[in-house]
Amino acid sequence: MSGEAVLRQVRSVLCRLEETIIFALIERGQFLVNRVIYEPGAFGPELGGESLVDYLLHETEKIHASVRRYLSPDEHPFFPDPPAPILPPLDMDDPLQPNNININGRIRRVYETEVVPHICAPGDDKQYGSSSTGDVICLQSLSRRIHYGKFVAESKYRGNPDLYMPAIAAADSSTLQAMITDPAVENEVLERVRLKASAYGRGTEDEGSQPMIDPETVVEIYERWIIPMNKEVQLAYLLQRQPGRPGAEEPT
Amino acid sequence: MSGEAVLRQVRSVLCRLEETIIFALIERGQFLVNRVIYEPGAFGPELGGESLVDYLLHETEKIHASVRRYLSPDEHPFFPDPPAPILPPLDMDDPLQPNNININGRIRRVYETEVVPHICAPGDDKQYGSSSTGDVICLQSLSRRIHYGKFVAESKYRGNPDLYMPAIAAADSSTLQAMITDPAVENEVLERVRLKASAYGRGTEDEGSQPMIDPETVVEIYERWIIPMNKEVQLAYLLQRQPGRPGAEEPT
Repeated sequence: MSGEAVLRQVRSVLCRLEETIIFALIERGQFLVNRVIYEPGAFGPELGGESLVDYLLHETEKIHASVRRYLSPDEHPFFPDPPAPILPPLDMDDPLQPNNININGRIRRVYETEVVPHICAPGDDKQYGSSSTGDVICLQSLSRRIHYGKFVAESKYRGNPDLYMPAIAAADSSTLQAMITDPAVENEVLERVRLKASAYGRGTEDEGSQPMIDPETVVEIYERWIIPMNKEVQLAYLLQRQPGRPGAEEPT
Repeated sequence: MSGEAVLRQVRSVLCRLEETIIFALIERGQFLVNRVIYEPGAFGPELGGESLVDYLLHETEKIHASVRRYLSPDEHPFFPDPPAPILPPLDMDDPLQPNNININGRIRRVYETEVVPHICAPGDDKQYGSSSTGDVICLQSLSRRIHYGKFVAESKYRGNPDLYMPAIAAADSSTLQAMITDPAVENEVLERVRLKASAYGRGTEDEGSQPMIDPETVVEIYERWIIPMNKEVQLAYLLQRQPGRPGAEEPT
C-alpha cells in the first residue's frame, strides 16, 4: 500500500476511535471524581498496595494478555511484562519497525490528574466499582489512540522517505516535529470531535436537557493531551526508525 | 422513601442505562458477527473448553467479584459461584427482599443468537479480541438493565402493597403480569430509545453519513428482549416476595 493509502486507512481508524473515546468519557463522567480509587493502598492490603484502578487495570491486562492482546502492534500494556499468552501466537501483520515506545505511564498520570477532574464533578459518590471499570475502558482507548501515532508516523515516512531520512539520520527532533505537524488536519480533528461530542453528549429533553458532557471538555482533552501525546509518539517512533529497513523501499 | 419516589429514582437509573447500552451496542456493532468467538473450544484447549467470550466474561467476573461487584444487589454474575471478594464486605443498602433470581443464562443465549446478528454485519473480520471485550460490556449492561426489574417490582409493590399482596399470595401470575404492565410507559421508553439511538448512532457527515447503528434495531432489542425480560424478572421477584417482610409496612 502507498504511504498515502495507509495514512487514509490509519486516519479512518483514528476517526472511529473518537466515538469509542467520547462514549467512554461520557460513561465515566456520570460518576464523581472518587479520588480514593486512585490512592495506592486505600482499599486495604488485600490489593497488594495497589490502588483500586491499578488493581482492576492490572488484572484486566493479565486476562487480555492471555488471549494475545499485547501481541498486536496497536496495543500497549500499562503494566510491564504482561504474562505470556495462553493461546498459541498468531502471525500478525505488523507494518511497524521494531520499537520500544510506550508512554502509558504518562497517559495514566495525565488521565488521573487532568482528565478525570475535567470530565467528573468533584466529590465521592461511592460508585467505586463502576468508576474504576470506566477508567479501565477510558485508559485503554486513550492509550490505543495515542500510540496509533506509530502507524501515523510510519505512513508519513513511507509517503515521503527521502524527506524524512535526513532528519532521522541527524536525529533532528525540531525538524521532524515540524514535518509531522499539520495544523489544518489538527483543526479538522478538533472540529469533528466538537460535533460528535455535541451529538453524543447532549442527553435527551426529558432528562432535563442537561448535556452529559460539555463538548468543549472533549475538545480540550484532544487539544491538550491526545493530539500532543500522539505527536510525541510519532516523533519518538521516527527517531528510532532505521532508514534502511523494509517499508521505505517497498513497491507501492 | 415512598414507592412513588423509589420508582422515580429507579426509572432515572434505567433511563441513564439506555446510554450505556446504546454505546455498548454501537461499539460491538463496528465489528462483524465473528461467530467463532462464541464456539466452545474453538480457540483450543488452552481456554479449558470455553469459548473466547466465555473465557473473557468468566475471568472478568472473577476480578470484579474480588472487588465486591456481586455483593451489590443490582449485579448478577453470568457464571455461578463467583469467588469470594478479597476486599472486606461492605454494609450495602439493599432495598430488595431475599431472592435467587438470575436469568443471565437466557440473556446470554438471546444476546449471542439474536442481538449480535442484529447489530453486527455477518462475517468474520478477525477482530476477536475487540469483539469479545465488547460482548462482555454489552452483556454486563444488559444484565444490569434486565435484573433492575427487581427494583422496579419492589417499588411498585411498596407503592401499593394492598393491591399486590392478594395476587402474590395466590401466586396469580397473569394478574401480576397485568399489574406490572403499563403500555404507556413502555411506549415512552421505546420512543426515547429511538431518539437516543438516532442521535448517538448517526455518525458524522465526513464518515459518509452512514449511521453506526439503525435506531430501529435498538428499539427492536428493547421491544423484543429487554422489556419482556425485565418484566419477567419483575414477575419472578413478586412471586418470591414474602408479603409480611419489611418494606411493605415501612413508614413512607
